Amino acid sequence: MAGNSFGQLFRLTTAGESHGPGNVVIIDGVPPGLALSEQDLVGDLARRRPGQSKITTQRQEADHPEILSGVFEGETTGTSIAILIRNQDQRSRDYTEIKDKYRPGHADLTFDAKYGRRDYRGGGRSSARETSVRVAAGAVAKKMLRELHGIEVVGYVRQVGDLVAEVPDPAAIKLANVEANIVRCPDGAIADRMIELIETVRSERDSIGGVAELVATGVPAGWGEPVFDKLKADLGKALFSLPAVLGVEYGAGFRVAALRGSQNNDAFLPADDRTAHVHTASNRHGGMLGGISSGMPIILRCAVKPTSSLPQPHPTVTTAGEATTIATIGRHDPCLLPRFVPMGEAMIALVLADHCLRQRAQMG
Amino acid sequence: MAGNSFGQLFRLTTAGESHGPGNVVIIDGVPPGLALSEQDLVGDLARRRPGQSKITTQRQEADHPEILSGVFEGETTGTSIAILIRNQDQRSRDYTEIKDKYRPGHADLTFDAKYGRRDYRGGGRSSARETSVRVAAGAVAKKMLRELHGIEVVGYVRQVGDLVAEVPDPAAIKLANVEANIVRCPDGAIADRMIELIETVRSERDSIGGVAELVATGVPAGWGEPVFDKLKADLGKALFSLPAVLGVEYGAGFRVAALRGSQNNDAFLPADDRTAHVHTASNRHGGMLGGISSGMPIILRCAVKPTSSLPQPHPTVTTAGEATTIATIGRHDPCLLPRFVPMGEAMIALVLADHCLRQRAQMG
Amino acid sequence: MAGNSFGQLFRLTTAGESHGPGNVVIIDGVPPGLALSEQDLVGDLARRRPGQSKITTQRQEADHPEILSGVFEGETTGTSIAILIRNQDQRSRDYTEIKDKYRPGHADLTFDAKYGRRDYRGGGRSSARETSVRVAAGAVAKKMLRELHGIEVVGYVRQVGDLVAEVPDPAAIKLANVEANIVRCPDGAIADRMIELIETVRSERDSIGGVAELVATGVPAGWGEPVFDKLKADLGKALFSLPAVLGVEYGAGFRVAALRGSQNNDAFLPADDRTAHVHTASNRHGGMLGGISSGMPIILRCAVKPTSSLPQPHPTVTTAGEATTIATIGRHDPCLLPRFVPMGEAMIALVLADHCLRQRAQMG
Amino acid sequence: MAGNSFGQLFRLTTAGESHGPGNVVIIDGVPPGLALSEQDLVGDLARRRPGQSKITTQRQEADHPEILSGVFEGETTGTSIAILIRNQDQRSRDYTEIKDKYRPGHADLTFDAKYGRRDYRGGGRSSARETSVRVAAGAVAKKMLRELHGIEVVGYVRQVGDLVAEVPDPAAIKLANVEANIVRCPDGAIADRMIELIETVRSERDSIGGVAELVATGVPAGWGEPVFDKLKADLGKALFSLPAVLGVEYGAGFRVAALRGSQNNDAFLPADDRTAHVHTASNRHGGMLGGISSGMPIILRCAVKPTSSLPQPHPTVTTAGEATTIATIGRHDPCLLPRFVPMGEAMIALVLADHCLRQRAQMG
Repeated sequence: MAGNSFGQLFRLTTAGESHGPGNVVIIDGVPPGLALSEQDLVGDLARRRPGQSKITTQRQEADHPEILSGVFEGETTGTSIAILIRNQDQRSRDYTEIKDKYRPGHADLTFDAKYGRRDYRGGGRSSARETSVRVAAGAVAKKMLRELHGIEVVGYVRQVGDLVAEVPDPAAIKLANVEANIVRCPDGAIADRMIELIETVRSERDSIGGVAELVATGVPAGWGEPVFDKLKADLGKALFSLPAVLGVEYGAGFRVAALRGSQNNDAFLPADDRTAHVHTASNRHGGMLGGISSGMPIILRCAVKPTSSLPQPHPTVTTAGEATTIATIGRHDPCLLPRFVPMGEAMIALVLADHCLRQRAQMG
Repeated sequence: MAGNSFGQLFRLTTAGESHGPGNVVIIDGVPPGLALSEQDLVGDLARRRPGQSKITTQRQEADHPEILSGVFEGETTGTSIAILIRNQDQRSRDYTEIKDKYRPGHADLTFDAKYGRRDYRGGGRSSARETSVRVAAGAVAKKMLRELHGIEVVGYVRQVGDLVAEVPDPAAIKLANVEANIVRCPDGAIADRMIELIETVRSERDSIGGVAELVATGVPAGWGEPVFDKLKADLGKALFSLPAVLGVEYGAGFRVAALRGSQNNDAFLPADDRTAHVHTASNRHGGMLGGISSGMPIILRCAVKPTSSLPQPHPTVTTAGEATTIATIGRHDPCLLPRFVPMGEAMIALVLADHCLRQRAQMG
Repeated sequence: MAGNSFGQLFRLTTAGESHGPGNVVIIDGVPPGLALSEQDLVGDLARRRPGQSKITTQRQEADHPEILSGVFEGETTGTSIAILIRNQDQRSRDYTEIKDKYRPGHADLTFDAKYGRRDYRGGGRSSARETSVRVAAGAVAKKMLRELHGIEVVGYVRQVGDLVAEVPDPAAIKLANVEANIVRCPDGAIADRMIELIETVRSERDSIGGVAELVATGVPAGWGEPVFDKLKADLGKALFSLPAVLGVEYGAGFRVAALRGSQNNDAFLPADDRTAHVHTASNRHGGMLGGISSGMPIILRCAVKPTSSLPQPHPTVTTAGEATTIATIGRHDPCLLPRFVPMGEAMIALVLADHCLRQRAQMG
Repeated sequence: MAGNSFGQLFRLTTAGESHGPGNVVIIDGVPPGLALSEQDLVGDLARRRPGQSKITTQRQEADHPEILSGVFEGETTGTSIAILIRNQDQRSRDYTEIKDKYRPGHADLTFDAKYGRRDYRGGGRSSARETSVRVAAGAVAKKMLRELHGIEVVGYVRQVGDLVAEVPDPAAIKLANVEANIVRCPDGAIADRMIELIETVRSERDSIGGVAELVATGVPAGWGEPVFDKLKADLGKALFSLPAVLGVEYGAGFRVAALRGSQNNDAFLPADDRTAHVHTASNRHGGMLGGISSGMPIILRCAVKPTSSLPQPHPTVTTAGEATTIATIGRHDPCLLPRFVPMGEAMIALVLADHCLRQRAQMG
């Protein structure tokens, strides 16, 4: 258990590095009878892949997934599903800089401290390239959730730098709204300015942070476990397991610090014409109470730091501990947010798929 | 795996309800030879227990722990350690209100949705009473971390309502600074105003939220796993598993959204007179890079919502789905933050203890 | 994960020593709505407890279980169930012998090698006393299996020394047949001779081994996982986790070595008047094919070694490694088999309960 | 957790079917710095592969392993290691027989009962083809155990039909003795007769069972956990997880049933010229006491049933439940034992590697 598996019942295990032969995921626990082919995976993989637009890294990876097992005659069999994505654009280059220097903000120093060595080619296992197979597994989870419960998981960019999108009703955002522009922000006016900002930042050999908002609709009330495996706990772990995430908040989030209980509590309302079951008048709780889904949309936000790799020289140390400077010449995203959206969606779908199976394990 | 266990190698499993016979924890994986007695547990239990001051709930619980196993002649044996805390002040009362109505902000509705039933006495398993044994287990983890690595975990209240403490150097705060006042805020001037605010809120039959900041010092570089079990992921899960937490952030946290890479990166510096190893000039990364500890202090903040139980009437529904009102007459904390501090520390210590053992499992 | 938990979804975690305050088990994953009280546990505990007859150890333990959590108004709530059994007859005695000498056949040397220490009082954690809470948890599993699927798990003594019982139809043996005599052998004629043999062996300050046979009827076809968690693998682990078990075999067992495929294969037969589904003409496969239940009775046998503690002097070494002799004066079973039966049944029930939940997790 | 993972700290997860694209394993937890290449895997894979001799199945598979991750510059990095073995000889054939009929002794019926479907091509996931990647992972485990502790795991065929080998000192058997003949029996005289018997059985369109004996030498005293994860329990699970195993026994095994304690106990002896630590005069306990390694060789035996696929017609039912006959025309091993040996060794090595890491996790 060196941390390459995730989930209890819908469980994935991954391997692979940035510049090795490829990345692979084994998904264990998928119910039999789910229609599945590689075509179900390519959509989200294309949303995640490098080189997809002018505001992402220019590394080119087709990210073609090969399903190695667990599917027969177009449907899942119930046995483990392996998916392989081979690396292609492992550009031959000089790794001397990152071999002998610690890149600020990266895992170079911490990998050396942990293992006494590291695969320095493109960051090795610490590269975000490992998220490709998470996204593939997430596509399987999304499909299962949609077919079994009509659940949809949609994310979008809420903030880049100081630019904050207006999103009056997060639960109303559809995939088409998100994909309407390359920055994946459903507020078109702000999206244009975000794109402009990202291009400016790139031209200044810098990077910029942001916030993604993610929403799951259709989750039945009752999912999640009451103590350690609260839905908010498992979701929190899932999102913090993604690179560059420094904050996660649900519903009203950090704003609750300044609220009184009388302001923060969401009143329960009886079933009515619009909602067939008891629901809340507002959703400051973010869709979970006591860590268990309430039937309201699950809403959360992730703070994503600016890309650490910078083409401008800045101070650091060599692996021998001597002061030096580094400028990471390479192919990097000036802003991680547009490609973060499908990664965040995948992690949420994986957690929900897991709790879907956990719920029926105990409750039948 | 219905979510009553936490950790991989330093692993606790808990049981118990608010108004049942008591709460129990079994801790598995503690190394042999650690001096341990019930005296090691009572300190943090006293910091967590209800009735400890005028600004907490007035339920009285001595929270006396009984070690049932795993300790012989004053030292741990390496076998599982069970700790039992019996409930005492199970005040005989009328539960009709919470039996037949869903308390806003609580897990009443979600438990019923999940299990089709619930132990409604004081919230049953959803009560924060279950955290008593987490704090007991956390005290064992703290002791192990201190003895093996000199690690200290200290938390304090950073914000209550709009009152925000000044804490120039979070890593310099000691337990004595925290315990200097009943609100557990090391900024004495703000602490007085926080206490005043909490008393005001209580007198207005309301409650108030806040932010706790938690710091771990002495953690060696190299702890945490590179993909799913990043230290920030496991810590995030740990803290979100506590009741009422709606947000978690590390280091610069949500502020990174508006920062550029050149502003956010923490430059590495060579070892110097003050620090014997490579370190960073600043700590916006919060002590972890790539999810692995960097050797810098681990710093995080939790947003804690205002207590949901309010003595003032507010709208809700009955378990039959009819509109009604509820006013929770009982013993409740007007602000959860002072008692949250030892809970948060315990969860951090448990995660670090787990990764301490995981590190030596793989790296020897 | 120092090995004090068992099962994936129906999961127990235990703690306790022979001469400490008591033993405790936490059971996680039990579905809500199962009627449960301490009365459901006392039957099997009485079958396991020491001092139950003239052919068992004379240590007296009432083994009264206290349910600490997870049951409300007479039914399980779905949250974790803790059961505490306090030790009573911790006879004040001189432990010098086993403190300073390694008892042959016991875990004294291996505990010291593992932990560098041990709780030598009555064997500490290595004592079979820890099985008391396994039997309590097994009683919960049995009840769940009976109510959900009509499954029964019955064990009995098949062999003691050279005495082998005739059991024409293992699946026809009922609890009443087993409990008809104190040695728990359904073949009455052999049972009398077994009792006589055990008394002879005791009078000669010796002990004797044997074989228990265990049968589960009513298990639906389809339980068990196809690769590592085959039902036969999980049952094998369960039974080998009990003290003194040196062999486990299913169906034809070791006899298959000398069989040809044409002799060993169990032919499938269509559903008929007696059996509503496809079944096999014979049951050499022991109820599992490919590690998955076939719908036929699950039949297995365990070889249990003679008690290692002997009142006659025999050679060993001191903890300092010097040659010496030891004679364990104390209260020991001259034959472990009669008390082994409920332990074996419990472990089988726990495995089946786990796979019951696993099956519905994936297959709904 | 649908049973496609094995181990706690040295943990493998597998996927793949008999006639799909291939089989893959991800190994998690391997320490960094172990020299590893595909050359380390091919030896045991060749011992396991079909078509290796005249007494095995004639399916031809080169079983070339591709290491996809976790190795850099010839050494393990500490991150997860993925190994892919593509299928080659997926002979185009008519699967009608096994598609529409249940093969006796196989998992066809139980897979259908479990999943409501199955990949019938060559048995799909239930085929022993999945053991190829277990053997590859086992080779990694063997290498780690050898380098860290000098441990060797060697297995051989002890019995085929009524032919039982003489093996005076199991712990003295080396790999070269085993590989001296194609049946993998170190008793050369009996080996010749075994080969003859297997050829006779094949010519009679039948199959034959047997017993493998497996020995691990060099295991330090103190490995294994005291309660559920006894070394004998985890080894038992490992071996029963292999296809066709119907019995497992340690040391004296089922013979203990007829022994008295005074006959069965292995006396402890002081360290002497030949053995530097306390050891036992005999090894009826099979190298584990209380489930923890004693420092003596670990010795166990597995009963392996005769191959269920038979080229002679025998009665069965169709998937619709009608009586019919089946004769499995195909490529099958007339005796599973020669190819079982490396599988059994692999599983033992995997368990020992896991407990090696578990021991240092808790004990440092």
